[in-house]
Amino acid sequence: MVRALRDHGPSTQADLSRGTGLSAATVSNLVRLLLSEGVVETETTTSSGRRAVLVSLSRRAGDRFAVGIDIGRRHLRVLACTPARQILGERVRPLPVGHLAEDTIACASTMLDELLVEADLDRADIIGCGVGIPGPIDERTGQIAHGVILPEWVGLPLEDHLTTQLGLPVHVENDANLGAIAEIWWGEHGVSDLEERSGGENLVFVKIGSGIGAGLVMGGRLHRGHIGITGELGHVGVTEYGPVCRCGSRGCLETVASVSTMLDLMRPGDAGPEPTIDDLIRLAHAGDPATLRIVEDAGLAIGRVLGGVANLLGPRMIVLGGPVIPLGDLLVDSVKRGLARWSSPVVAGATDIVMSSLDGRAEALGACAQVLHEASDESWTPRRATRVPVAHR
Amino acid sequence: MVRALRDHGPSTQADLSRGTGLSAATVSNLVRLLLSEGVVETETTTSSGRRAVLVSLSRRAGDRFAVGIDIGRRHLRVLACTPARQILGERVRPLPVGHLAEDTIACASTMLDELLVEADLDRADIIGCGVGIPGPIDERTGQIAHGVILPEWVGLPLEDHLTTQLGLPVHVENDANLGAIAEIWWGEHGVSDLEERSGGENLVFVKIGSGIGAGLVMGGRLHRGHIGITGELGHVGVTEYGPVCRCGSRGCLETVASVSTMLDLMRPGDAGPEPTIDDLIRLAHAGDPATLRIVEDAGLAIGRVLGGVANLLGPRMIVLGGPVIPLGDLLVDSVKRGLARWSSPVVAGATDIVMSSLDGRAEALGACAQVLHEASDESWTPRRATRVPVAHR
Repeated sequence: MVRALRDHGPSTQADLSRGTGLSAATVSNLVRLLLSEGVVETETTTSSGRRAVLVSLSRRAGDRFAVGIDIGRRHLRVLACTPARQILGERVRPLPVGHLAEDTIACASTMLDELLVEADLDRADIIGCGVGIPGPIDERTGQIAHGVILPEWVGLPLEDHLTTQLGLPVHVENDANLGAIAEIWWGEHGVSDLEERSGGENLVFVKIGSGIGAGLVMGGRLHRGHIGITGELGHVGVTEYGPVCRCGSRGCLETVASVSTMLDLMRPGDAGPEPTIDDLIRLAHAGDPATLRIVEDAGLAIGRVLGGVANLLGPRMIVLGGPVIPLGDLLVDSVKRGLARWSSPVVAGATDIVMSSLDGRAEALGACAQVLHEASDESWTPRRATRVPVAHR
Repeated sequence: MVRALRDHGPSTQADLSRGTGLSAATVSNLVRLLLSEGVVETETTTSSGRRAVLVSLSRRAGDRFAVGIDIGRRHLRVLACTPARQILGERVRPLPVGHLAEDTIACASTMLDELLVEADLDRADIIGCGVGIPGPIDERTGQIAHGVILPEWVGLPLEDHLTTQLGLPVHVENDANLGAIAEIWWGEHGVSDLEERSGGENLVFVKIGSGIGAGLVMGGRLHRGHIGITGELGHVGVTEYGPVCRCGSRGCLETVASVSTMLDLMRPGDAGPEPTIDDLIRLAHAGDPATLRIVEDAGLAIGRVLGGVANLLGPRMIVLGGPVIPLGDLLVDSVKRGLARWSSPVVAGATDIVMSSLDGRAEALGACAQVLHEASDESWTPRRATRVPVAHR
């Protein structure tokens, strides 16, 4: 059972019973024993809407951990996580649009210090630091390639900057790629029999935020392409004479379906105060017809492009993430309809679409997973994962 | 040098000099020596438009070989090839549209017998037989999934049928996948430094025939997806209220850019005799304005969809194949323009598009390569291939 907790992270007693094949009573007795010996800790949580006991391995002084930093266009998240998938601490802060790299890196450094104090962690126990960036990184130069989301960051030798500023070994990665890694490492998707025979998971993680990008896990491996730029879904054209896009093309998916576009559409004629993503989510759930139409049209357009992705790659699972997560089925349903309309019926029938269950942490968790994977000999692809709830404190 | 010939197949003396680092004079002397001992054979060929001497390993009695069968909608090709990449014999025959599986398999069996007699080969030396099919194969059932191109073949347990009829171990594969394997194994594309560091080739092979499908080699591996159905480019939607497609969707790429569509467009109002692909190629090269427009529009539409593919996968090389090969730059140029228009500029700039140099043999050669690969322990992905011309006799 200790092994199950180490492999899958904090789990409910019910999950431990399912995962180990032990009876609920045996698991309960074992947990009581391990609790008395200080090996595990428990806390009350909810699972499928019911009260449950979440069991996790106790942290001991000197246990090492990874740091994941998720830099968005409007937010910054810093998170610490053990190899046993236990989240030790987390801090999130909003960022001003157009933030400069220097300021943001300094802010991340401060947040990390605060987190270490708050969670009583030792800087010397940090294994390494993964950083997610909402832009493609050109492997020929190691720089952010073209500044669709962070124009102020284009051309920076980011890994060097961060390593110097944080005083830690840093690995920089596209945020959607990290999301895909997190969905494999932490998510609830497992691997099918067919996939197990043919090489591993086929999962696409789509981050829908100010931009739209995808991370591709194919045959159990993250696909990096020729120059490290992949999953540029936001710049797939969907309308021939649509708006000109910052990328230099026209009618790109981002010009009709990104969060920025949705927010712009909520202010016809630029009148009234600037709406936020929270307004969008609130109004959509309240049933506001215009907001629902905006969400539906974005979903249909995203689904149309994902129809092409599914035709091309045959994924088993497409996971949607980013700040749109609270829209839930209001968005997922129209993405499904779009995909069904714009892909081969046999392909549409074999592709699942779900909202990420990682609650906006996918990118930071993926950053940790990558550091932990590189520090170990294990693959970050677990074989046949049991369903594991995401734990956080 | 014998090793170079075994690894890369028949090569010109100039290629052998480049590949082995030996001087032209040394290569020439070695070839003369090996020729006198019967180890190699030579024949005159042209390379880059100049006369050259093509050197190949001599076949000895008892040398084993693979058989590749390429079943198209309108043609059947049977080819025999040694592990040293030497083509021992080849037969091609046209097929009637709507051919039945039973007839075609019987025909392939006859053609193989003829080929064995003609090239003085022993059936007992066949290692195995690869068969390419112009349709997606559902790995859940082993059957052709949905009959866009060969409706008469849907639902057949093809591998069983072929194994029984041919009396050989048979491996059935989607033809575009085989084309991609052939371009890696036989083509002139090699692998870049970046790719060598990050896992291998990133190549997309696009077969443009009665249907349009792609084979994807990503990070040096053929991508098979969740249920074995990938690269369904022909069914990516390009026009919302376009023609209804046989797949059940609408406005698919195939409805505007396949060879069948191009031929239909050559007969406005269905008047006149039914044109053939040879007519299309002849008229295009003669500069017929309507034919050039048909080819250009097809190329732009294919390029548009490939723009999305490039955005998603970041391939280094896209190779076009199928019966359109003789159109050459008349088609490639408009595909390039379509891709540049419908992809991120940084992606477009990093993606090469070329016509296949394998002269319509890609599918059958890939079928052989797969058999030879499975029979050996080697990867079918050569590290850093030297440029090797395709030899045939």
